[in-house]
Amino acid sequence: MTERFTALYHVRAEAASIEARAAAIAVEQSVEMPLKAIDSPEVLRDVVGRVEAIEDLGGDLFEVRIALAVTTVDGDAGQLLNMAFGNTSLHDDVTLQDLELPPELVAQLGGPRHGAAGLRSQAGARGRAMTCSAIKPQGLPPARLAELAERLAAGGLDFVKDDHGLADQHFAPFAVRVPGCAAAVRRAAAITGHPTRYVPSLSGDVGAMRRQLALVRDEGLDTVMIAPMLAGFANVQALGREFPNIAWIAHPTMGGAARIAPALLIGKLFPLIGADAVIFPNHGGRFGYSEATCRRIAETARAAGPGLRGALPVPAGGMTLARVPEMLDFYGRDTMLLIGGNLLSTRERLTEATSAFTRTVAAHSHARNP
Amino acid sequence: MTERFTALYHVRAEAASIEARAAAIAVEQSVEMPLKAIDSPEVLRDVVGRVEAIEDLGGDLFEVRIALAVTTVDGDAGQLLNMAFGNTSLHDDVTLQDLELPPELVAQLGGPRHGAAGLRSQAGARGRAMTCSAIKPQGLPPARLAELAERLAAGGLDFVKDDHGLADQHFAPFAVRVPGCAAAVRRAAAITGHPTRYVPSLSGDVGAMRRQLALVRDEGLDTVMIAPMLAGFANVQALGREFPNIAWIAHPTMGGAARIAPALLIGKLFPLIGADAVIFPNHGGRFGYSEATCRRIAETARAAGPGLRGALPVPAGGMTLARVPEMLDFYGRDTMLLIGGNLLSTRERLTEATSAFTRTVAAHSHARNP
Repeated sequence: MTERFTALYHVRAEAASIEARAAAIAVEQSVEMPLKAIDSPEVLRDVVGRVEAIEDLGGDLFEVRIALAVTTVDGDAGQLLNMAFGNTSLHDDVTLQDLELPPELVAQLGGPRHGAAGLRSQAGARGRAMTCSAIKPQGLPPARLAELAERLAAGGLDFVKDDHGLADQHFAPFAVRVPGCAAAVRRAAAITGHPTRYVPSLSGDVGAMRRQLALVRDEGLDTVMIAPMLAGFANVQALGREFPNIAWIAHPTMGGAARIAPALLIGKLFPLIGADAVIFPNHGGRFGYSEATCRRIAETARAAGPGLRGALPVPAGGMTLARVPEMLDFYGRDTMLLIGGNLLSTRERLTEATSAFTRTVAAHSHARNP
Repeated sequence: MTERFTALYHVRAEAASIEARAAAIAVEQSVEMPLKAIDSPEVLRDVVGRVEAIEDLGGDLFEVRIALAVTTVDGDAGQLLNMAFGNTSLHDDVTLQDLELPPELVAQLGGPRHGAAGLRSQAGARGRAMTCSAIKPQGLPPARLAELAERLAAGGLDFVKDDHGLADQHFAPFAVRVPGCAAAVRRAAAITGHPTRYVPSLSGDVGAMRRQLALVRDEGLDTVMIAPMLAGFANVQALGREFPNIAWIAHPTMGGAARIAPALLIGKLFPLIGADAVIFPNHGGRFGYSEATCRRIAETARAAGPGLRGALPVPAGGMTLARVPEMLDFYGRDTMLLIGGNLLSTRERLTEATSAFTRTVAAHSHARNP
């Protein structure tokens, strides 16, 4: 008996064909060849995927549970995606809805090193939700980005992050932008007395990211943003091991969540490979996620797996100051609110608007958690 | 005037809202903030995405062309995905259909180093389609995999590749499997006189891949398989630069092609970041790609961009010996046919069946290209 993990798919099919379809997915995601061509009893017993249950959800939609061998993943986060959804992602009638991983596999993958509690303690944020904004637009020179970072930090935010579009472009190279913004945020923090963190966004290949991380460390920074779907799951895992003192905020870009359930991809898998906080599109903003989806992402991130530190949910995407109280009611205080464009739109009033944001968050939580 | 590249989206929307929807995508994929908050005329002129055209395709579907600044990508393949589809991938009413890249950006990205012509010359395959099979199932020990590789190579294939499920698992570690399979294929090639190539599959993080590539080189091998959606586009690009003598076969796992047009993702982008050959699901096999989609993938891969070497299309996925003539008629000879499970199903007749495969391909081309 080898240990198994369970992948849960939603499959659009006719009732007459669902058993064959489920069996085909079990083969595709394990041995990927006709079973009759396999003459090893061990492989047939221990490696071939097993259909565990098929449930009719109505309207030609079925929930299929398939048990896959933990040995085929062997602790490699990239291989987890490959085995759970790789080739099956090419079928447009299947979505990957959830993964149930045994403690052995969860322990191999590792999960957040710092988690929500670590981010909270970095920022000295107790008894309230946390706050974040972003410097943008890309295209500005480093000095202008640093100026924005300073004015945002002056408003008392916990985190000021790079826009995810900021890479290592000529108009604001990482090695110029990051020291400038770090110094700007330090200046503001010295005045406010609040330990605001500047969060650079990593980009490029792993070699470039490693150089960026060395610079981050040299600047005394302790938090970065990374996009797991661009960097590759195994690389996020490896960089986390290499830089254990850094806290990781995951960005959902290229998450194409229509094919992998958002609560699984962003809420469960990103923390599993080491994200301490996960950014996702809040309901009612620029993206179409429902309230239920957002609640599930937040709940899943906070409890990504047995024995793992909880990660911090970071709703974002077209959020406004006016929505802060409602968002705090919805997400509670174990959350970081990220408002970018709406603050930047106040232009010369940027620090005042940011200060109103941070005060609203502090006051709101105070009222609810006396 | 800065140089632009064009992203072409299909957007599901009502006619009354499509202009606003297109404008929102242009902002999302460039500055990601309200335009009124931007006080830099340079950014407004040179960086903000521009809607160039909207075409009504009927049935509430629109084709939207958006021009994005080349400077925001700056030659980083990961950033290309981020800017072309990153956040917009989170909307389920948009697919990315095509990218039109100016020569400057194409040159920065580089494309195939060896291409179809290089693979053909490695294998000494002239005037006919090329042939490939895969060793599997995962779960077999290295000696059993090597035995399969030897029997397949004895049938005169051009390439014998690892199954994409074979990573660095305990049951067949890369460092044991690869030398064993390489030696097995060399033995067979010495007998057949045909220079069959063994193609290991890379897995894990970039550091692991780099160690795997060093072993590949030490074994005298010159071709590997990589999954760009797992490894990360920027990492494929970086490894290609680091190992310029290696030829790269791209595997489509996690390609979730329902949201990015397959001809773009597999046919155009994989070669652009350095794939010399691209594996994709053939029509009429286990996957739902249409004939038209497969034809477009093949045509695009062969001509991935101006000034680029052509990549080799590799249709696969449940192919059978019986379909070889039809596939050769459909794809012509500038193709590699990949048959795995159907050959492995012949068990004790594996080498004979493989030999029938390679002879059919050689004879067919001979008849059509006298």
